[in-house]
Amino acid sequence: MALQLVIGDKNYSSWSLRAALAVDLAGADCEELRVRLFQPDSRAQLLRCSPTGKVPVLLTEQGAVWDSLAIAEYLAECYPEAQLWPQEQQARALARSICAEMHSGFTALRSHLPMDLARDKALAELPDEAQADIDRICAIWAGCRERYASTGNYLFGQASIADAFYAPVAARLRSYRVALPTAAAAYVETIYRWPAFQRWYQAALQEVKG
Amino acid sequence: MALQLVIGDKNYSSWSLRAALAVDLAGADCEELRVRLFQPDSRAQLLRCSPTGKVPVLLTEQGAVWDSLAIAEYLAECYPEAQLWPQEQQARALARSICAEMHSGFTALRSHLPMDLARDKALAELPDEAQADIDRICAIWAGCRERYASTGNYLFGQASIADAFYAPVAARLRSYRVALPTAAAAYVETIYRWPAFQRWYQAALQEVKG
Repeated sequence: MALQLVIGDKNYSSWSLRAALAVDLAGADCEELRVRLFQPDSRAQLLRCSPTGKVPVLLTEQGAVWDSLAIAEYLAECYPEAQLWPQEQQARALARSICAEMHSGFTALRSHLPMDLARDKALAELPDEAQADIDRICAIWAGCRERYASTGNYLFGQASIADAFYAPVAARLRSYRVALPTAAAAYVETIYRWPAFQRWYQAALQEVKG
Repeated sequence: MALQLVIGDKNYSSWSLRAALAVDLAGADCEELRVRLFQPDSRAQLLRCSPTGKVPVLLTEQGAVWDSLAIAEYLAECYPEAQLWPQEQQARALARSICAEMHSGFTALRSHLPMDLARDKALAELPDEAQADIDRICAIWAGCRERYASTGNYLFGQASIADAFYAPVAARLRSYRVALPTAAAAYVETIYRWPAFQRWYQAALQEVKG
């Protein structure tokens, strides 16, 4: 199956990163098409391949699949052997719950600490509502790690779509130097050691330098 | 399987409506627990059963499943014979794409035209960004209806999670008396004739009167 994933700038596009990590988990044969965001013709370029004018979008032989969560579900269906969701039903329901919570929420974190992988600097002041989002995220991570630590270092043991969804959050917490409880700090470290994340991260740094 | 769905006010809680319609599609044996929103103790009540302090949340024997989209996926898995997603893979990918687009987007529509089922009055002025959301929604509906009209009046022929997700949008367009292209107006009518939606709608009107 020949796929193409349309993504934005690797340094800034957190939703593109989520989809790319899901593609990597699937082991899919997938070409990456990069559209530079924030350019005068970005939207026109995107509208040529993306019904929403946004990234990411996965181009398949049967048509476009858009939005990171729908892309993740599509890949989970097409590559069942890769086990993109946890195999146990309760764990899978929890994984989908926290992914959906990320997908529709944490707006304070997202607006005050936009993803900027090359950054290494705290905010002058962390707004209370962003701290509240961070507290909730740390609670989610601690809860998952407590239940699934025996099978691996990711949220549900082995890497899954849940980690693809929270990787850009881990990156924000590190690049904005947010003080974290021990379990959360360890999870951020797990993300930075994830080979697929590291490849994207290094490419993002190159992109910013270039 | 005994389930409980925690919902908010039927007149206002569009995410609760989405989950309730998915429960109805599944034919699940599910008790409805209503928490009145906008009360001094609403959040405290919700936090007793919902990890996010929000509705909807589905209480299962194995734990809580939250967020409308994760609830829908959970029900689709537990009740495969009810076919909550379209059966054909391409249609299912499209259905998930438009649900995810709704789940994370259309913020102008959602903030300027909050769900209020008992309302029957246009806005003094429809902001441009809300009109842009409406235009995109009408394009989604027209695209689906064009492809799947032969098998029924819903977005993918038979009623699916996609209709559960767009029903509160249809309700907004009617209650705010938004002028619509023919195909969109016909789809709004389909939603209002959907028995599960009608039951919720009538209960909402009672709730507001009471």
